Amino acid sequence: MSFNLHPDLVRDGIDLGQLPLCRILLINDANYPWFVLVPQRRNIRDMIDLTEDDYTQLYQESRLFSQMLMIAFKGDKLNVAALGNVTPQLHVHHIVRYHDDIAWPGPIWGKHPAKPYSPEQIEGIRQKIKGALYAIPA
Amino acid sequence: MSFNLHPDLVRDGIDLGQLPLCRILLINDANYPWFVLVPQRRNIRDMIDLTEDDYTQLYQESRLFSQMLMIAFKGDKLNVAALGNVTPQLHVHHIVRYHDDIAWPGPIWGKHPAKPYSPEQIEGIRQKIKGALYAIPA
Repeated sequence: MSFNLHPDLVRDGIDLGQLPLCRILLINDANYPWFVLVPQRRNIRDMIDLTEDDYTQLYQESRLFSQMLMIAFKGDKLNVAALGNVTPQLHVHHIVRYHDDIAWPGPIWGKHPAKPYSPEQIEGIRQKIKGALYAIPA
Repeated sequence: MSFNLHPDLVRDGIDLGQLPLCRILLINDANYPWFVLVPQRRNIRDMIDLTEDDYTQLYQESRLFSQMLMIAFKGDKLNVAALGNVTPQLHVHHIVRYHDDIAWPGPIWGKHPAKPYSPEQIEGIRQKIKGALYAIPA
């Protein structure tokens, strides 16, 4: 059976394409450049539920994606987290943080209501990510 | 020069020993089984600041430590996160979560004041971890 994105992630995320293992989503909150990587595997909730090969692949993709994000968005800090207490499908947050973002220096979750992007902003991020992703080997 | 634990981590953490790369700390908050792995490398703030070899080693240690934690503490969910906005030394949170813990299903940071362990509780956790760590290959 094929992989389906959990309805919570469909609701909150904007599909930006995929890496060999992971779907890349932009969370629709213009307060922060906030992305999630979702390994396209069924019935996985925690990272340790992945096979060793998939786990390794996830972290290679996470590393390259992180490097790309920090170059593209010139952040001060990156937050990487697998929480998933509410949405029972493994998704790894990658959030570019700035010393002057509205939640700094706290974690972002539950702090401020999401501020939806305009279609133009989404297109801008899509192009920025697309350009940078060409640099990531498959 | 040798590695020194950041003063914030010395203040909040109880040293439980080490893996080949990481120091293992128990955060002194009995609300949750909450640990951090700290790669013993100088001047590293984000995971992507690690060399590729160290990055790989961190994730191997994190995987084995996570598996061990979920067996030892029989949690419902594991939260794994590298945030570090306040403390500028890379440390990776590993928090065992339960459906009835006081912050569930939210993230734990900034929710409730820390509840210090008694010396007996710390010793109990130390023994539990020590026993389980023997199963982790060096």
